[in-house]
Amino acid sequence: MKLYDWKVAPNPRRVRMYLAEKGIEIETVEVGEPGQARLSEAYLASNPHRIVPALELDDRTLIGEAPAICRYLESQYPEPPLLGRDPRERAIVEMWDRKCEIEGMQACAEILRNKVKAFAGRGLPGYRVPIPQIPALVDRGLVRLETFYEKLDRRLGESEFVAGDVFTGADITGFVAVEMASRGGNGIPEGCPNVARWHTAIAARPSAAA
Amino acid sequence: MKLYDWKVAPNPRRVRMYLAEKGIEIETVEVGEPGQARLSEAYLASNPHRIVPALELDDRTLIGEAPAICRYLESQYPEPPLLGRDPRERAIVEMWDRKCEIEGMQACAEILRNKVKAFAGRGLPGYRVPIPQIPALVDRGLVRLETFYEKLDRRLGESEFVAGDVFTGADITGFVAVEMASRGGNGIPEGCPNVARWHTAIAARPSAAA
Repeated sequence: MKLYDWKVAPNPRRVRMYLAEKGIEIETVEVGEPGQARLSEAYLASNPHRIVPALELDDRTLIGEAPAICRYLESQYPEPPLLGRDPRERAIVEMWDRKCEIEGMQACAEILRNKVKAFAGRGLPGYRVPIPQIPALVDRGLVRLETFYEKLDRRLGESEFVAGDVFTGADITGFVAVEMASRGGNGIPEGCPNVARWHTAIAARPSAAA
Repeated sequence: MKLYDWKVAPNPRRVRMYLAEKGIEIETVEVGEPGQARLSEAYLASNPHRIVPALELDDRTLIGEAPAICRYLESQYPEPPLLGRDPRERAIVEMWDRKCEIEGMQACAEILRNKVKAFAGRGLPGYRVPIPQIPALVDRGLVRLETFYEKLDRRLGESEFVAGDVFTGADITGFVAVEMASRGGNGIPEGCPNVARWHTAIAARPSAAA
């Protein structure tokens, strides 16, 4: 197996944290263009979806999309379980993983991609055609992010981790969302003590450096 | 189990088609406000995520998000397999399911939610706070949809179904995306004969009426 990675991007980080939590080591190929906020032309030409991460299996099958990659890895390396220990837990983990991705990471991506000059004409990743930036999406992203922080704080007031009483992939996605937000200048709000408590705990795990 | 459903919305349709393909019958509760493009106040007050579909398990656990619901149902009703027959296939199905959702359904939702008067102030579903419509997202959605049709056509030139040689949940999500697009006036373009061939085949399945 071989992982196509871009060190500065959030979705590959989900997979790297997952691998680190499992203690799996696989060949990793950095495909970012050095010093630029874009993927290399060679990689873009080789992957029809033009995004990262991607996992190449030994039979050359290319699996894209972080959750699909992690679920495949879970099937090959079941211990410790990071996506739930039974069907009910797996459903709860997947639901929260999606909440953290759609309501957290997507909000941050909206802010970043529609604001930062380096992404001019690339308001969304993966497209061959220009996707003009839409400044109004920065404001919408901020509203979404505020709602996400509130929801995450309420949830982490009920349980130690995002999907319940054990660490799972939903914590990885939530952590990556909060890290994205913080790097964009939208760190954990004062009114979210549960998020702050949880973030400190996740940041102390060795996988957070992955 | 009990499914919270809204007959006119696309994500519940994914679950209804999945149930029909499996031949599963479960209690279904319609939670749309009759005659309006919104969910009932009672449902919004009962579900913290304020969206459909949601599956309530017998222990009252509420599972949201169509892919999480379908994966839970797959664990309870494994035959016929609709999410892949082995880990590699499951990864391919999940990847394509996400492509159809993110690049197809989300593009359609962007067009609909930012254009239609009935969704004024509700540019995204699920939020308590106003999400103003952003007209520029209608244009972006149309560009995304064109790219999606091209990608889907290329893919369906390689294989009979979206994720390979058998019908899977990725076909359901792709079909729902094309149905959304068509209802919004953006039917299958002339240059996409593979999509047209596939759409005719999926539309002929009894589950398409679910």
